[in-house]
Amino acid sequence: MAVRAAVAGASGYAGGELLRLLLAHPEVRIGALTGNSNAGQRLGALQPHLPQLAERVLEPTTAEVLAGHDVVFLALPHGQSAAVAEELGDGVLVVDCGADFRLKDAGDWERFYGSPHAGTWPYGLPELPGGRQALRGGKRIAVPGCYPTAVSLALFPAYAAGLAEPEAVIVAASGTSGAGKAAKPHLLGSEVMGSMSPYGVGGGHRHTPEMIQNLSAAAGERVTVSFTPTLAPMPRGILATCGAKARPGVTAESLRAAYEKAFQDEPFVRLLPEGQWPSTAAVYGANTALVQVVLDEAAGRIVAISAIDNLTKGTAGGAVQSMNIALGLPEELGLPVTGVAP
Amino acid sequence: MAVRAAVAGASGYAGGELLRLLLAHPEVRIGALTGNSNAGQRLGALQPHLPQLAERVLEPTTAEVLAGHDVVFLALPHGQSAAVAEELGDGVLVVDCGADFRLKDAGDWERFYGSPHAGTWPYGLPELPGGRQALRGGKRIAVPGCYPTAVSLALFPAYAAGLAEPEAVIVAASGTSGAGKAAKPHLLGSEVMGSMSPYGVGGGHRHTPEMIQNLSAAAGERVTVSFTPTLAPMPRGILATCGAKARPGVTAESLRAAYEKAFQDEPFVRLLPEGQWPSTAAVYGANTALVQVVLDEAAGRIVAISAIDNLTKGTAGGAVQSMNIALGLPEELGLPVTGVAP
Amino acid sequence: MAVRAAVAGASGYAGGELLRLLLAHPEVRIGALTGNSNAGQRLGALQPHLPQLAERVLEPTTAEVLAGHDVVFLALPHGQSAAVAEELGDGVLVVDCGADFRLKDAGDWERFYGSPHAGTWPYGLPELPGGRQALRGGKRIAVPGCYPTAVSLALFPAYAAGLAEPEAVIVAASGTSGAGKAAKPHLLGSEVMGSMSPYGVGGGHRHTPEMIQNLSAAAGERVTVSFTPTLAPMPRGILATCGAKARPGVTAESLRAAYEKAFQDEPFVRLLPEGQWPSTAAVYGANTALVQVVLDEAAGRIVAISAIDNLTKGTAGGAVQSMNIALGLPEELGLPVTGVAP
Amino acid sequence: MAVRAAVAGASGYAGGELLRLLLAHPEVRIGALTGNSNAGQRLGALQPHLPQLAERVLEPTTAEVLAGHDVVFLALPHGQSAAVAEELGDGVLVVDCGADFRLKDAGDWERFYGSPHAGTWPYGLPELPGGRQALRGGKRIAVPGCYPTAVSLALFPAYAAGLAEPEAVIVAASGTSGAGKAAKPHLLGSEVMGSMSPYGVGGGHRHTPEMIQNLSAAAGERVTVSFTPTLAPMPRGILATCGAKARPGVTAESLRAAYEKAFQDEPFVRLLPEGQWPSTAAVYGANTALVQVVLDEAAGRIVAISAIDNLTKGTAGGAVQSMNIALGLPEELGLPVTGVAP
Repeated sequence: MAVRAAVAGASGYAGGELLRLLLAHPEVRIGALTGNSNAGQRLGALQPHLPQLAERVLEPTTAEVLAGHDVVFLALPHGQSAAVAEELGDGVLVVDCGADFRLKDAGDWERFYGSPHAGTWPYGLPELPGGRQALRGGKRIAVPGCYPTAVSLALFPAYAAGLAEPEAVIVAASGTSGAGKAAKPHLLGSEVMGSMSPYGVGGGHRHTPEMIQNLSAAAGERVTVSFTPTLAPMPRGILATCGAKARPGVTAESLRAAYEKAFQDEPFVRLLPEGQWPSTAAVYGANTALVQVVLDEAAGRIVAISAIDNLTKGTAGGAVQSMNIALGLPEELGLPVTGVAP
Repeated sequence: MAVRAAVAGASGYAGGELLRLLLAHPEVRIGALTGNSNAGQRLGALQPHLPQLAERVLEPTTAEVLAGHDVVFLALPHGQSAAVAEELGDGVLVVDCGADFRLKDAGDWERFYGSPHAGTWPYGLPELPGGRQALRGGKRIAVPGCYPTAVSLALFPAYAAGLAEPEAVIVAASGTSGAGKAAKPHLLGSEVMGSMSPYGVGGGHRHTPEMIQNLSAAAGERVTVSFTPTLAPMPRGILATCGAKARPGVTAESLRAAYEKAFQDEPFVRLLPEGQWPSTAAVYGANTALVQVVLDEAAGRIVAISAIDNLTKGTAGGAVQSMNIALGLPEELGLPVTGVAP
Repeated sequence: MAVRAAVAGASGYAGGELLRLLLAHPEVRIGALTGNSNAGQRLGALQPHLPQLAERVLEPTTAEVLAGHDVVFLALPHGQSAAVAEELGDGVLVVDCGADFRLKDAGDWERFYGSPHAGTWPYGLPELPGGRQALRGGKRIAVPGCYPTAVSLALFPAYAAGLAEPEAVIVAASGTSGAGKAAKPHLLGSEVMGSMSPYGVGGGHRHTPEMIQNLSAAAGERVTVSFTPTLAPMPRGILATCGAKARPGVTAESLRAAYEKAFQDEPFVRLLPEGQWPSTAAVYGANTALVQVVLDEAAGRIVAISAIDNLTKGTAGGAVQSMNIALGLPEELGLPVTGVAP
Repeated sequence: MAVRAAVAGASGYAGGELLRLLLAHPEVRIGALTGNSNAGQRLGALQPHLPQLAERVLEPTTAEVLAGHDVVFLALPHGQSAAVAEELGDGVLVVDCGADFRLKDAGDWERFYGSPHAGTWPYGLPELPGGRQALRGGKRIAVPGCYPTAVSLALFPAYAAGLAEPEAVIVAASGTSGAGKAAKPHLLGSEVMGSMSPYGVGGGHRHTPEMIQNLSAAAGERVTVSFTPTLAPMPRGILATCGAKARPGVTAESLRAAYEKAFQDEPFVRLLPEGQWPSTAAVYGANTALVQVVLDEAAGRIVAISAIDNLTKGTAGGAVQSMNIALGLPEELGLPVTGVAP
């Protein structure tokens, strides 16, 4: 079997990471590559780290160009996936790295994205309870946001085991590639190097309702989320520091047991030994999430921390992992577990 | 008047920053410079950014060498200040950048530092309620820790105004200079560049009791603190994201009013206009703290964020500011307000 | 005396650095601040590191707005200075941080900049032979380019003393602020962090003829220059590695003597002790140039290395230093010698 | 066929990179892992980016432990390889990532390394003229230094084609991992971030004779090398800017033709299209070298620039590539061509 895959939005960071992973995937052949403003350009000028594809020329993002593939990855700006997906029809697996089909609640979508809700697709975070079943054999996948991936992996075991009060407080640091490749002054190297800065503070970040959706599903009750994203001076990586009050009776042992159980069979999540903490460097370019959890007895709080690569496990790696499940391939096929460190 | 100042521990990061600031201070003449393992070396080899002092040779840290000054700054490893201070006598102003005299509670000290408590000195954070009075005319100053400086400035207005529940949750990112100049493998450039990592998670960081002390004093009741420090890939700067549940009835207006009142006359704290957020780059090398606060109504929480330079406002700048007050000089004398950006 | 200074182009990196320095200058009062696309905006939103000027509003760059000052600093895109300067008249000191008036040879100008030559102004690099005399009492100053500043300081002593063959080979690394604040994809933090890359290779960089002009003047003969600039993952700083074949008979002693003589009275250039090498960190935010030179006997070459801050000594600091000379103020007035390190 | 491979020195940066690559190699099974000071420790604590090997425990570096493998990689401090290799015997392929067996001239070795010369092994840079033949079927490989790899690939085509004068001038920037994992103050993150600094200036760097050896062999005459290495604020990567005077009659076309011919069949060297320049980011974690060359007609010089990852193509990747050749495996087997970017 050879899976023929197209990538729409191949000139951006998510598109480039998809190509890096798909080039290493033994069952995938890379088909059409599209861009919009960059259509007609050689990929070598846009993604110089992909020498094998340097001579490929970007085509426009149309249903015609994308037709005839087994899988189409969409790495498009928010709001553009629905139209493309509809034209592609039900026979092809469509994996959307954008936000359009992540949220179940139309009101949440409209409040945070300001446009009509396009619908809800199976959610590409296999590690969540029931996550794999939702993907098997399907033809549509909504790849989670990078922050919700990191945060959900850090906190769902505590909520699924009933150990945490339903008020989560999250501060996460992200590398700049999470903000995309569009040139904006505040993303210039001169601005970001040597600087930490917050944004979307106070509940406004669009990934907040997605976190609430995932954590509430795990908890079986509504979980509120206070989420503060910060921009860190590094190209890749998310470090998510996540906390909640511990429910009465929670012990360090019961907490650790819940996390061990949640992750014991997971190929891409590693609960670190006690005393060792995640770093984003250790998962650079890997589809791995590193997690650690501790009970702060003096403050009465659970603190769970995860590190992922926002472009790999947080976007393109999660997308390929979910594709593997949907197509019935081995889940780990073609995905790097080792980080590129130091 | 010329204030003759000695710096003990002149080869480290805090010592170097003290010298940078003292060189620009119009009323200070720099006297003895001491080191221990580096005694006998030219300062130019150790602190190449201070060309005016390049030919100065470090002397050993003894009471003899430090005698005869108006002010002695101690930038020594924790636990070494008490003995030196005692030998210097009561006539000289001693400004301790170490932790030894910060905590009021001997039990806290012993629990976190594992040695007998040396005592408590006036606390060098003039912006706290009553902070200036405690310093005027005194002969001893305990310079706050860098994290407690950032966190206390971000949160004390909310606690002093009775707006926040007494359970603070803090995640702070620090540049690597906060960890000092001693060569340790995890602080190598190869390890820290491109990486965010937490440490001291779950209540173990030594700055925790100092934060509790400051916030509890402002609140008039015991405040618990969940504190997670993270190491960020930058040499300087702290970004502290601080939150607590809002008390019933708190509004965005009452919250902002409390912060405006707290900082309206402060020369070194700037409450940013609404919608603008602090960044560490903007305070690089400055004695300025930038603060912003918002009410997250959906989560029912206050989120306050501050940015400081850990070596300037967080250590050496705070030390010089406190010295100015103690000596009756203008508080702002010789201290930079502008950051070096980009 | 109070010098009233205006800054045209106050929203960019050179403009911001001029303001940082002018705020600390005891004889300067800051007057009009102008921008073009940013006219009407608060400076606090554009230059958050300058809290003292946060409420100032940018005016449009017109002769009317710039009238009535003692000094006008122009930090404008290349090609815009001539028109503004002409309107300002001969009574005001105009300091141009752009390239327009740096080159003496109209053919060079046209070849590298592609527009008619506007003329030549006294050149603001006082350390060059005859450099100070050219500036004293004048009303026009062409501030050198950042690379030519670093390169000329590293090599002119060797050429002035007749020690080097007239073929210089230069490789310099610059921080990203040298490329300005305009948002371009290749200057995004995601692109530059973790990366070194060359540009303008093979003789095409516009600073090449300026280097040739300076080195040829020092040598008294035509010097060719092979110049390769590279972009380094840091916000500020230039490290220039400069070499040339040693003339017959040159010894390590004669080489060092030439450099010692050239810099012995210079307030802003420090020839490091033998065995110590410059780093850009040591001059971060300082008007200092660090220089070292060595004779590679096996290769028969002189290697001279300088480090400057491209925005300080390389642009705004050099501008203020030259202004001081032109106005008859002490040359060092208001200029930082210490770097902000680490 | 399964190649059983041991790694001596598995706790360092070269060792970690070897393991990252060997884990992805389809014909290799990882055997013994050794360290010296770290013997007895879990690899997970030392190399957290290699989760598959986290539970492996380092053994001491002895011939006994290393016996019974098909290949032994030595990533040991200089001077330690000879003794180990001798004990391993002639039946096993020994790949030495250290310097011990790189140089042919015993005098060069003694002058630069200060110890007796251990001998010369086949040199692991297959792209050099005759490079592959020297490795096929052999049992010993001396992996080149990282700088000589970058520099030789950039310049050998010009020398092999007789286009360049035999005086090369090289300035190269390296990421900090090239300096290893031993904790030294000048390698602290606080020191290197935001800073460019040179070292080993004037002919003293130990990689200089290795470059001379390679370029002289290509040229068929003695080539002198002026080499200046600089430390750049990034964890990985080398950008080598290499130049030499063009021989009379050299044209842009003849120069490019020489490079096209040299690299046309190379799987790991990519001569970029004219106008595009290498960056270290594009080869992050890849065994790829990017090369570009240009004729600076005004200066009469050839400028050739290469970018590699010092740990991959510059050390561990080159080692695995050479192993593949020695064992008769496909040269590209298991080696990444794509970089991890941005």
